[in-house]
Amino acid sequence: MRMMTKKLAAIEAGGTKFMCTIGDSSGEIFAQERIPTTTPEETIKKCVEFFHNSHEEIEAFGIASFGPIDLDKKSPTWGYITTTPKPGWQNADLVGGFKSEFDVPFGFDTDVNGAALGEYKWGAAQGLDSIIYLTIGTGVGGGLLSNGTLAHGMLHPEMGHIILPLHEADIEQEYFGSCPFHKGCLEGLVCGPAIEKRYGQPSHELDEDHKAWDLISEYVAQALHNFVCIASPQKIIVGGGVTERSAVLPLVRTKLTKSLNGYVKTNTIENMEEYVVVPGLGNQSGSKGALALAERALLEA
Amino acid sequence: MRMMTKKLAAIEAGGTKFMCTIGDSSGEIFAQERIPTTTPEETIKKCVEFFHNSHEEIEAFGIASFGPIDLDKKSPTWGYITTTPKPGWQNADLVGGFKSEFDVPFGFDTDVNGAALGEYKWGAAQGLDSIIYLTIGTGVGGGLLSNGTLAHGMLHPEMGHIILPLHEADIEQEYFGSCPFHKGCLEGLVCGPAIEKRYGQPSHELDEDHKAWDLISEYVAQALHNFVCIASPQKIIVGGGVTERSAVLPLVRTKLTKSLNGYVKTNTIENMEEYVVVPGLGNQSGSKGALALAERALLEA
Repeated sequence: MRMMTKKLAAIEAGGTKFMCTIGDSSGEIFAQERIPTTTPEETIKKCVEFFHNSHEEIEAFGIASFGPIDLDKKSPTWGYITTTPKPGWQNADLVGGFKSEFDVPFGFDTDVNGAALGEYKWGAAQGLDSIIYLTIGTGVGGGLLSNGTLAHGMLHPEMGHIILPLHEADIEQEYFGSCPFHKGCLEGLVCGPAIEKRYGQPSHELDEDHKAWDLISEYVAQALHNFVCIASPQKIIVGGGVTERSAVLPLVRTKLTKSLNGYVKTNTIENMEEYVVVPGLGNQSGSKGALALAERALLEA
Repeated sequence: MRMMTKKLAAIEAGGTKFMCTIGDSSGEIFAQERIPTTTPEETIKKCVEFFHNSHEEIEAFGIASFGPIDLDKKSPTWGYITTTPKPGWQNADLVGGFKSEFDVPFGFDTDVNGAALGEYKWGAAQGLDSIIYLTIGTGVGGGLLSNGTLAHGMLHPEMGHIILPLHEADIEQEYFGSCPFHKGCLEGLVCGPAIEKRYGQPSHELDEDHKAWDLISEYVAQALHNFVCIASPQKIIVGGGVTERSAVLPLVRTKLTKSLNGYVKTNTIENMEEYVVVPGLGNQSGSKGALALAERALLEA
């Protein structure tokens, strides 16, 4: 007879794919499957099948989702995706679709809050308790861990939408960003589509020495300056396709130091190479983040 | 024989005055004295005398201080004021000067974190757990309570120094703010001295319909927009001389709604009158904040 040990189930729920993971409380991953995001019903059904077919005994569930989502445990729509522009997903009962199949504790948070928690438990932020995880790709989002707790507050952080001063080059071109809501917000200025719009090429086709990277780094550094002044993180982890470009983070570090201009003086920030870093969990930040949500749900149950 | 019940001691330590308070864990205040801020030795000595002369049995001590300060309990300089420009106060052992006289638990935090805690316990933010307290006067500072804990992280928030887009009126006048560290930071743009510099009159002498208030409100609203997107507070409490002007907060609320442009949709923020508010503790925000730090220190001891 095969011995069954209890496992954790995790889903990184994105607009393109739902990445399903079976792992354990040490962050080890045993199985993974990529389910394309179609309708809520179909997508959730396929995810449920994956976990059922694994024949693992699931002890807790973690879902790290695209948003906006309802994180208020007292709300009747806790566990829902709410006002997303994604067709078919408005007011989708994401957690409910799994909870009816698995009677275990559920952790639920934003994808980026999940990633922040994963980096704190098993990645680049171990031993710290206050960090920001920022991802810059097709969209921009940020998660905030403060004193070991994930920030929800009124809703959850929406860090891609902070307003920044426009760079001269964008003022000259009258480019105010790609966000339909805000002129000059971080996401609108630095996301992949904004880069393509400015230079007529997808960002991954641009050379390492393309002037785009100086401009993007300038905006990211300004955003980080504001993160430092508002939340005082002990480390800022920057993931996502745009910042995987090797030109970007070194420029961001230099520009952040210049922007803060010695006002915030700590040993931590003097060591800028260790202050602004790539994810320690690499491309598993999201999945391990969801796993960390499952583990925390188990501990809190 | 007089019955002695135990009391809490609190100090709001500012650059101009140290406000000493004796109170209790319900937030009631029994005695207060204003000590002018001179040298650390003399100021601390006079405060110590006040508490000794009260003949109260002090159960815990709370100090809410101007900064920057060292909040890291593992640091040998915990309880110190650190790199302040205030002459004589660099590396002043603020808590130590009291701890040698009173062998009780000590709470220590920034003035604005203290005020945030006070508002949470006894003021405008009761029943919430994630709030920002912002004060705008001669300087600008902000405190952050996240999930019921005060944000320290790397240092502590320095919200006055976030970078904002410059308003056209300031660009035309080539006015980039009064901060010697940052061009276009919140404090440099909206503090009392910046208003006086622009209009040639102290801010308290300006009429309620002076154009200054529209400009100031614009910047404050932009700052609040960024606070919402980064920390997602359930309420933002705005105190300090500048925002006591009745013209300011109504304008800030309108401009914040316009700036967020429906992107962050919650019942909380739709009720903007209750979202951006003045301190519930009025001019006792600071003293009661320090009292709340004492009470928390007692609970955690």
